[in-house]
Amino acid sequence: MNKQTIDEMVIGKARLARAGMRKLSNLSSEIRNNALETMAEAIWEQREQILTANQIDLENGERTDLAQPLMKRLELDQQKIEVMADNLRQVAALPEPIGEVSRMWERPNGLRIGVVRVPLGVVGVIYESRPNVTVEVVALCLKSGNGVILRGGSEAIASNSAIAEILQKSAATFELAEAIQFVEITDRKAVHSMIGAHDQIDLIVPRGSQEFIRYIMKTSDIPVVGHADGICHIFVDQDADLEMATEIAVNAKTQYVAVCNAMETLLVHRKIADDFLPIIQSSLSQLEVELRGCELSRSICADISPVTEEDWRTEYLDKILSIRVVDDFEQAVDHIERYGSHHSDAIVTDNYASAQKFLKMVDSAAVYVNASTRFTDGYEFGLGAEVGISTQKLHCRGPMGLEGLTSYKYIIYGDGQIRT
Amino acid sequence: MNKQTIDEMVIGKARLARAGMRKLSNLSSEIRNNALETMAEAIWEQREQILTANQIDLENGERTDLAQPLMKRLELDQQKIEVMADNLRQVAALPEPIGEVSRMWERPNGLRIGVVRVPLGVVGVIYESRPNVTVEVVALCLKSGNGVILRGGSEAIASNSAIAEILQKSAATFELAEAIQFVEITDRKAVHSMIGAHDQIDLIVPRGSQEFIRYIMKTSDIPVVGHADGICHIFVDQDADLEMATEIAVNAKTQYVAVCNAMETLLVHRKIADDFLPIIQSSLSQLEVELRGCELSRSICADISPVTEEDWRTEYLDKILSIRVVDDFEQAVDHIERYGSHHSDAIVTDNYASAQKFLKMVDSAAVYVNASTRFTDGYEFGLGAEVGISTQKLHCRGPMGLEGLTSYKYIIYGDGQIRT
Repeated sequence: MNKQTIDEMVIGKARLARAGMRKLSNLSSEIRNNALETMAEAIWEQREQILTANQIDLENGERTDLAQPLMKRLELDQQKIEVMADNLRQVAALPEPIGEVSRMWERPNGLRIGVVRVPLGVVGVIYESRPNVTVEVVALCLKSGNGVILRGGSEAIASNSAIAEILQKSAATFELAEAIQFVEITDRKAVHSMIGAHDQIDLIVPRGSQEFIRYIMKTSDIPVVGHADGICHIFVDQDADLEMATEIAVNAKTQYVAVCNAMETLLVHRKIADDFLPIIQSSLSQLEVELRGCELSRSICADISPVTEEDWRTEYLDKILSIRVVDDFEQAVDHIERYGSHHSDAIVTDNYASAQKFLKMVDSAAVYVNASTRFTDGYEFGLGAEVGISTQKLHCRGPMGLEGLTSYKYIIYGDGQIRT
Repeated sequence: MNKQTIDEMVIGKARLARAGMRKLSNLSSEIRNNALETMAEAIWEQREQILTANQIDLENGERTDLAQPLMKRLELDQQKIEVMADNLRQVAALPEPIGEVSRMWERPNGLRIGVVRVPLGVVGVIYESRPNVTVEVVALCLKSGNGVILRGGSEAIASNSAIAEILQKSAATFELAEAIQFVEITDRKAVHSMIGAHDQIDLIVPRGSQEFIRYIMKTSDIPVVGHADGICHIFVDQDADLEMATEIAVNAKTQYVAVCNAMETLLVHRKIADDFLPIIQSSLSQLEVELRGCELSRSICADISPVTEEDWRTEYLDKILSIRVVDDFEQAVDHIERYGSHHSDAIVTDNYASAQKFLKMVDSAAVYVNASTRFTDGYEFGLGAEVGISTQKLHCRGPMGLEGLTSYKYIIYGDGQIRT
């Protein structure tokens, strides 16, 4: 298919999603929640259909030598489908994200002005191989009153089509089918049609590898909110409780290495480096973490290999940690500002002033005192489901939940006011 | 100068602004407010210096045949400088926009999580000929703790340089000079250096003509929030008080035609068109407004000229009004959705259900019942000074005041929590 044909098809679907969104915006939250419950049931009841489709994708994956981690993400079973259904029910049970009038005030001329939460409009989601993303995203978008247009990767096309069809059919019983659009075109051009459709789509959410997300951010004409790099730091201050510091650092590095809120760099205050480095080196070595450190750290611990400038900027997502001994608090904050990705950074300290100063000076989505960076997560924060974690500062920052899928408008009640 | 040299200069200035911002973020609001007061004094005391520089710009403008409206915007006098000084004082007196912890909660594991307002970082402002923008923008950015990098148009370069120098000197007494950076390069390439500096600048605010703003929005690598088109509608419902409808429509169209919240299209319910059109036609003709209408409106009022499809999409900013008779409420809402710019739209009605439905269904930054669209304005809404009015849905919508120049971060107080 040529680009123009693909453009027309994608834009046509985005227009339908917008029409569907306008219907949605007039429905009660009860109906939207009922639709989500019905979808949960349908997904579970028609699991065989999904598993059959998934088999096709898996066979294709084997034939095309798809990498093992991708195969694993692609593969569905009854349990994973049960999780999908649960996910729909959980999102249905979340507090209503739209319609809330957060403030309302009266002006001297009698105008009453209110600020009300509204859906963003149409959300375009571009993702790679995990079919459960289809369900998660549809759930969050419908709950927040948005139309959604989905474009999954070619590896999962059969699974995603099957899931999308089931969701659409359930939605149809509530006259909501239009609000869910699935782009079945696996040609990469379809991605470009989506990120160019700024009249029809209000927000692009990319899901997948960092490389993929960066590419979408760079090329999209439409605002993008995406799960970004996490180069997270823990600064062990001179006044740290070293036992607590060890527990937190080990947790942040090793509890789950392949996630964005894992620690990648440990900063150690010079005054406690002689005491702390041998302890942490011993704990992390037992867990098979490779340590790369600055000259000073290597003069204290022989088992640390040399670090490069590139290491400070690297999200390892692996059992590797870079270590720097810093002269003082300021050097630690400067390092975080210079090399960090403004995701999650922590200080371990018993000093009140250092704690408060760190919270104030470090400009990251989540800034911690005496806790592991691994808590940066919608569920852990108590915010419910999340679309991802944003390290950008506009629109939404940190865990992006339902509120990130909303905007607001001003509503004004008058009784004939004119401006003089 | 070649592009590389300009890039280096602009990026150098943006880096300084960021360093200045980091200092600012550690200062009390008292000091920031004192700096604004000191700037107000300095602007007034050194008015002769500003007027002398302005004279140079005016002479250049005459020599280069600058259009009269631009000359008028460029020209300064004592009174305009007094307004600049007042502006600085007013912004100083506004409530503190940063540092507020809007929510704080405790998790079952004892973590205390708070959401705190923080500055965006470095704001890049690109504007055309009005020198007072230099003052307004510096005031709003300093108040909200942001570094700012300004690039004014070549027509006002002498005036802007003089103003920027005075502001920087005042800021220097508070060690804040770095936070205010002024790009003196009038080469258009400097604009491109700014909108490409995504590592140094967090937000671009363009001020000037619609054409200019659209150009910046299209080409910037950095998020842009800009004052956008206003194609505003008033829908006179079948249950409208026709006297109120006339007052509101006349006000929204004629009180100030060259602004984004003026009405451009009047939608009239078919059932009252025979009564209402002659009244509004008579009122608006007296005020020399040209009426362009649909077939049906022309069959009722002979003095209405034919409207084209293009008219519905046009922001006249002039004494012209397009008129459409609609069959019903739905057709009115569809028209607004299809042709409007989602800025400000109003219904005039005495019907409770129609009022509520309009507020719900119309997806614009400001949706009115029984009031003129002319109220969409930071001051009129009681929000204080504004950077502009946003018709986008992400980050900030409607009048963009100090809050639009802020972001938030999560601060987390722990006592050793790790994730299990």
